[in-house]
Amino acid sequence: MAEADRHDKTSHQLRLLSDALETGRLGPVKRLVNTLSPAEIGNLLESLPLGKRIVVWGLVDPDDDGEVLVHVGDEVRESLIAEMDPDEIVAAVEDLDIDDLADLVEDLPATVIDEVLKSMDRENRDRLEQVLSYPEDTAGRLMNPDVVTVRADTTVDVVLRYLRLRGELPEHTDYLYVVNRRHQYLGRIGLAQLLTHDAGTPINQLLDDEQAAIGVEESDSEVARQFSDRDWLSAPVVDDNHILLGRITIDDVVDIIREQAEHQALSAAGLDEDEDLFSPAKRAFRGRLLWLAVNLATAFIAAGVIGRFEDSIEQIVALAILMPIVAGMGGNAGTQVLALMIRGLALGQIGSSNFRVLLRKEIGVALINGVLLGSGLGLIVLAWFHSPMLSLVIGTALTINLLTAATAGVLVPLTLKRRGFDPALAGGVLLTTITDVMGFLSFLGLATLVLLR
Amino acid sequence: MAEADRHDKTSHQLRLLSDALETGRLGPVKRLVNTLSPAEIGNLLESLPLGKRIVVWGLVDPDDDGEVLVHVGDEVRESLIAEMDPDEIVAAVEDLDIDDLADLVEDLPATVIDEVLKSMDRENRDRLEQVLSYPEDTAGRLMNPDVVTVRADTTVDVVLRYLRLRGELPEHTDYLYVVNRRHQYLGRIGLAQLLTHDAGTPINQLLDDEQAAIGVEESDSEVARQFSDRDWLSAPVVDDNHILLGRITIDDVVDIIREQAEHQALSAAGLDEDEDLFSPAKRAFRGRLLWLAVNLATAFIAAGVIGRFEDSIEQIVALAILMPIVAGMGGNAGTQVLALMIRGLALGQIGSSNFRVLLRKEIGVALINGVLLGSGLGLIVLAWFHSPMLSLVIGTALTINLLTAATAGVLVPLTLKRRGFDPALAGGVLLTTITDVMGFLSFLGLATLVLLR
Repeated sequence: MAEADRHDKTSHQLRLLSDALETGRLGPVKRLVNTLSPAEIGNLLESLPLGKRIVVWGLVDPDDDGEVLVHVGDEVRESLIAEMDPDEIVAAVEDLDIDDLADLVEDLPATVIDEVLKSMDRENRDRLEQVLSYPEDTAGRLMNPDVVTVRADTTVDVVLRYLRLRGELPEHTDYLYVVNRRHQYLGRIGLAQLLTHDAGTPINQLLDDEQAAIGVEESDSEVARQFSDRDWLSAPVVDDNHILLGRITIDDVVDIIREQAEHQALSAAGLDEDEDLFSPAKRAFRGRLLWLAVNLATAFIAAGVIGRFEDSIEQIVALAILMPIVAGMGGNAGTQVLALMIRGLALGQIGSSNFRVLLRKEIGVALINGVLLGSGLGLIVLAWFHSPMLSLVIGTALTINLLTAATAGVLVPLTLKRRGFDPALAGGVLLTTITDVMGFLSFLGLATLVLLR
Repeated sequence: MAEADRHDKTSHQLRLLSDALETGRLGPVKRLVNTLSPAEIGNLLESLPLGKRIVVWGLVDPDDDGEVLVHVGDEVRESLIAEMDPDEIVAAVEDLDIDDLADLVEDLPATVIDEVLKSMDRENRDRLEQVLSYPEDTAGRLMNPDVVTVRADTTVDVVLRYLRLRGELPEHTDYLYVVNRRHQYLGRIGLAQLLTHDAGTPINQLLDDEQAAIGVEESDSEVARQFSDRDWLSAPVVDDNHILLGRITIDDVVDIIREQAEHQALSAAGLDEDEDLFSPAKRAFRGRLLWLAVNLATAFIAAGVIGRFEDSIEQIVALAILMPIVAGMGGNAGTQVLALMIRGLALGQIGSSNFRVLLRKEIGVALINGVLLGSGLGLIVLAWFHSPMLSLVIGTALTINLLTAATAGVLVPLTLKRRGFDPALAGGVLLTTITDVMGFLSFLGLATLVLLR
């Protein structure tokens, strides 16, 4: 899918802004920034080096400050909050929705949290404390406790009168929830239905009890799965006794889906999705070092294997020239299988009941590709080094390593997942260690057996 | 984020289903399948090898057939449609929403398309043809032309009466669109507002003209960006003359976001996101072969570099043992930078105005890590081979290759993007070719200069 236009639009804004910042005249910058939505401002701030970021942050309309803070990653958020007075922070966040505020609150200085709590009315303070009482990454943290409820034993016109009295509904309200006397969730009525039915229609005739409720302790990835599998736009949240606690709307779920996708792409390279693109080098290097050190350690395992064949290499230098090809191709083929497995595991499409079929298929693919690419590689090596035996050895070694890659590509992520590890994080390192070792071992081993005995 | 529970739930269903299928008694399977939503059935079908898939597909409630087809990938969809009679297909798809039908129609046999068109009433046929007249991956294809419009010069009670007469509203209707006599989009009114305002309130007093309209030719990734940056749940679609054509709802946008994420994860391994996990090996190998062949070709470039240093390796075999470490570490470090760049480019956070800052930062990170890891590597090599000069050479070569990786990690994706290529697809192959070549060149080259002259 072409991302080009998206890129072009935001980076065009970025260029305009950069040019304006260079001139030092902040008026145009301010006007430009304040045509953007809070999420776009957040995106822009994440695209700016620290110095410029602080300048632009000072120009953002204070009314948008809170929403912008909600929309940036943890590291960038810290850099922005560090520039604000406690009063400014309180003013910025006190008008946020409860679910957004709950998301922010743990990044605020303790004194500011007290101030924010003091500035809230009792009802909202109770709601915030309720939301914060649930663990992070659960439905309880995502929900907004501000919901409109009605009783089943009433009629459309009573509800209409109640709504007119009540005035404005919470943002993104598409359904009213029907509860009983104990505030247990019974079902919902769409606003559309209230509008298209006669005033006298009893509410329980319109009641839709098909909409399932989400348990307050469900994980946010489970919430995301249900929203996307069932095309929900909003859903009620209940406790163990089915008492209605709040509602989750799809705009918050979209953020989770995005974060999950980013996590998968970045954790494969040992990175944290909250990393600030522009954090200074002397801070950023730490986030990379551990993963590189682990890779360095595993590289020695492969080097150790090569070391065992010192004598063979000394006699036939061509082995040293060609051995990275066999190892590298195994890594490439394994990476393909790993990528499919990680997606399949994330979608729950792979389990103990079907991984054998998958393994058999991948071994079949590896065998076909091994024969095809192995023959190709063998022919090129024959033309280069004029040794039919060397050519046979490298073709066979490649096939063996592709088979290893297929097997490891299926089993490594499956095993990691079963043991509770994230296959996206550790899968790649483990897999390439296996294919490197097997690549060097099969090629140098076969060469030693066939060419040097 | 833990995906474990999601995995567990679906794979639990999968296991139940598999067990039931093994017994051959299809009654329980059918009951199980028909408790699931169409998207969940689709997910399940994608998790089944072809034989079982066809059996289960035969058990799905025919009323759900159409929705299930909408929710599976292209390859799996083909395998399902191949099992259906033309009549069954027509029955399955004729009740779909126009936007879903448009999504499916091109995968149907031509004779079936004619049948489907004939079975539709004139209004819907025109709508379908209109949607199909826009290119794939644009707003025109995503929109549903079925929208409720009202005029500005009327009052709440007139609209309420109209809605009651009209009856059911299109699915997920949260706003009515206000148009003028020429059907140009003027703004929108929330259903919530109709419910909370007095009957006599003029519509133009409630009109919200802040909601921007989407151009019918905008790309779907641009549509996704706007929905997620501005927290929209729905948006109107207009043509160049601002005439209202339809509306897009967020449930379709969520699918795009998911697809983009999958595309990014899979295309890095040269894979197509529509690949059927269970397509037979003799078919699946083709999807992998090209990318592996490209990688094989680039591997020869690196092998060629090693070949230049044949004499050096012959004299010091330790070089052959250690050279993959230097090359591989460059690849790892470069992959980290590449992953950050691909995300930054996709979010539009990186452009000509700020990539220099980023390059400087990444070079700084590489320098710090080069010194730290280079020293570590040097010490280990000293302990292993007792050669201070070799130890110095490998430490220096590693630092050089990390600097190369940082530079290439920033510039390769940026250049690919500028030239209109997908950095997620081609970035990895190009980058590792560069780091392999530079790894071998710097290590073997320095060794030859320092150790052999």
